[in-house]
Amino acid sequence: MDNFSYCTPTKYVFGRGAELHAAEELKSLGLRNVLVCYGGGSVVRSGLLQRVLATLDEAGIKHVELGGIQPNPTDPKVREGIAIGRAEGIDGLLAVGGGSVIDTAKAIAAGVPYDGDFWDFWAGKATIRTALPVGVVLTIPAAGSEGSGNSVITLLDGMHKISLRTDFWLRPKFALMNPELTFTLPPEQTAAGIADMMAHIFERYFSLTESTEVTDRVAEGVLMAIMEEAPKVMADPSDYQARANIMWSGTLAHNGICGTGRREDWVSHAMEHEISAVYGVTHGAGLAVVFPAWMTFMAEHRPQRGAQLARRVLGVVPTGSDRDDALEGVARLRSFFSSLGLPVTMAQLGVDQPDIDLLVSKLHENKGERFGGYYEITPEVSAAIYRLAI
Amino acid sequence: MDNFSYCTPTKYVFGRGAELHAAEELKSLGLRNVLVCYGGGSVVRSGLLQRVLATLDEAGIKHVELGGIQPNPTDPKVREGIAIGRAEGIDGLLAVGGGSVIDTAKAIAAGVPYDGDFWDFWAGKATIRTALPVGVVLTIPAAGSEGSGNSVITLLDGMHKISLRTDFWLRPKFALMNPELTFTLPPEQTAAGIADMMAHIFERYFSLTESTEVTDRVAEGVLMAIMEEAPKVMADPSDYQARANIMWSGTLAHNGICGTGRREDWVSHAMEHEISAVYGVTHGAGLAVVFPAWMTFMAEHRPQRGAQLARRVLGVVPTGSDRDDALEGVARLRSFFSSLGLPVTMAQLGVDQPDIDLLVSKLHENKGERFGGYYEITPEVSAAIYRLAI
Repeated sequence: MDNFSYCTPTKYVFGRGAELHAAEELKSLGLRNVLVCYGGGSVVRSGLLQRVLATLDEAGIKHVELGGIQPNPTDPKVREGIAIGRAEGIDGLLAVGGGSVIDTAKAIAAGVPYDGDFWDFWAGKATIRTALPVGVVLTIPAAGSEGSGNSVITLLDGMHKISLRTDFWLRPKFALMNPELTFTLPPEQTAAGIADMMAHIFERYFSLTESTEVTDRVAEGVLMAIMEEAPKVMADPSDYQARANIMWSGTLAHNGICGTGRREDWVSHAMEHEISAVYGVTHGAGLAVVFPAWMTFMAEHRPQRGAQLARRVLGVVPTGSDRDDALEGVARLRSFFSSLGLPVTMAQLGVDQPDIDLLVSKLHENKGERFGGYYEITPEVSAAIYRLAI
Repeated sequence: MDNFSYCTPTKYVFGRGAELHAAEELKSLGLRNVLVCYGGGSVVRSGLLQRVLATLDEAGIKHVELGGIQPNPTDPKVREGIAIGRAEGIDGLLAVGGGSVIDTAKAIAAGVPYDGDFWDFWAGKATIRTALPVGVVLTIPAAGSEGSGNSVITLLDGMHKISLRTDFWLRPKFALMNPELTFTLPPEQTAAGIADMMAHIFERYFSLTESTEVTDRVAEGVLMAIMEEAPKVMADPSDYQARANIMWSGTLAHNGICGTGRREDWVSHAMEHEISAVYGVTHGAGLAVVFPAWMTFMAEHRPQRGAQLARRVLGVVPTGSDRDDALEGVARLRSFFSSLGLPVTMAQLGVDQPDIDLLVSKLHENKGERFGGYYEITPEVSAAIYRLAI
């Protein structure tokens, strides 16, 4: 187990009616004037936004709005939010939505008090020293941004999709999580969210750090719970208990508890980010394609962790060969993803002839010639993995 | 899954040399004058206390000391600490030790700024509205107090041992956790700590709340990790990796992550507290006796959760009978505890003729005529369980 420092100060308020605590939580942080961020029309149509804003009005909390945040959020919306936030003198943000909305709110929170361009942080040119507090009303269990210190933003100029990770500043102060709000998610979005949260665990699970038994077991436990509950939410989108388990799993998958004490990987996310940036696919669906391809390569080149995953989580009966166990695990994972209606090939993702040279060159432009926690990714290796995804 | 609110703001700094971060963490909280709490001579003899105090001196942090805190800590020491704290105008506390030291520091932290008698909080006569910040250098993985909002104090007058649970105020601000500091623990203390942390999970796991798959799986995962690593630390007390896994497991067992979304039980703790209060036994050793007795009673009267535990954690092959599976699970748990050198009967605990009437009457005096989350405990039931422990 490696040395680590771990702090998750986010207050989770979970259950029916959780969103109605928005004003109370903002007030307990001393906030009086917030920017409310949201995405497309669903939070408006469902009445959720109005319900939340009504609690703010009642509590005398001033608010301005920033709507229309798109999936795979980009820098112009962040800049728009920073400008509004400064003009209105906001002292905090409330994100009502999923990962894209939350990540945009986090970027605005870092950008408002910063003298330079917010992208400096994402480009690695500056370190966040302060940020406005962010609260969340979660509507999509997937990205885990409600409990993480991360934010993924794409710079439109050059389509650079970058994930920034902070220990503290970008962690939401509170997350209001009502599973009922997820009943109306379309099946493909529910499924993509499930792939996303599983991927967040895989990135932490595939590690060269040894002797991390307790972190392994926690990670395996959350994965088993997701695989148990996923078919239930697909079969009955209004199954409160299954939705609740999936929603909480999405948070645990990415708030760091599945990664304590070990070096993580994050190669598959980086590889998928390029696919999302170039082809505009849903992040979670892209991960359902990339991760099994990456695991297939690893089964041939470094099979130990995939084999443990296969045996402990995917029900593979040990054959005596790590490679064979790991490959059988990948087959079962693909079959599980398919059962949720997820794509498992680039073709199923709607990308018939992916430009692998372009993906590889953009990947290494962003991540460097060699990178990766579990296995060193060179351009040859990434090309091979992208080919396994076709 | 029940509605819940969950926040663990404690910053964990984990690994070799973690204790040397004491001054840095106190400073980051703005603390300038702290009460340093510790127990017997081992932290003095080992040089740990001096090492920690040296970092404080170097950083210009004033400190006064409160040593000699005993296991099963009592109110006079708390009152002594409150008096010193007020006289010296402390702004925070640093606990260097295990659960008894940390719990005492927490009680002092709540007592110093309170006008009335600190015991009001433990007696349920008042609610904590503020407390001084507490930091921890952990030396004994067991009580989980480094990550919990709990504190167990015994009122000498009447030997009332009461556990106070708070959501926020009694949670340490930081916990410095160096597994090397646990190398010198005597085997019986290591084993008692392991029983204690397992019991913290059992109390959360035995619940009537249904559909808590992800919380179940996390709890089962931590239990499996403990059972995997425990024989290693008993065989080689200086096995860093095994010590690290046990130490982190002890925190996860009690910081709430194994209980989210469900009603908990805590009957076995209450029953053991009476044994500790009357006979002065080690808390963890007492739990190794009480829990299997409680589980045996439950196997006959409400076997479902014990059966799941038996099958998922204790390797019991399903027989088709929850009762039989649960009983086989108890047998395996007793055998596991015995393998660590723990007592599993009152006689092995050194209490040959327990005064069951006294234990029962004190238990219900503290907890009421009927209590319990998983199964209602009446005086008849508690007497039956105490008898199963003889």
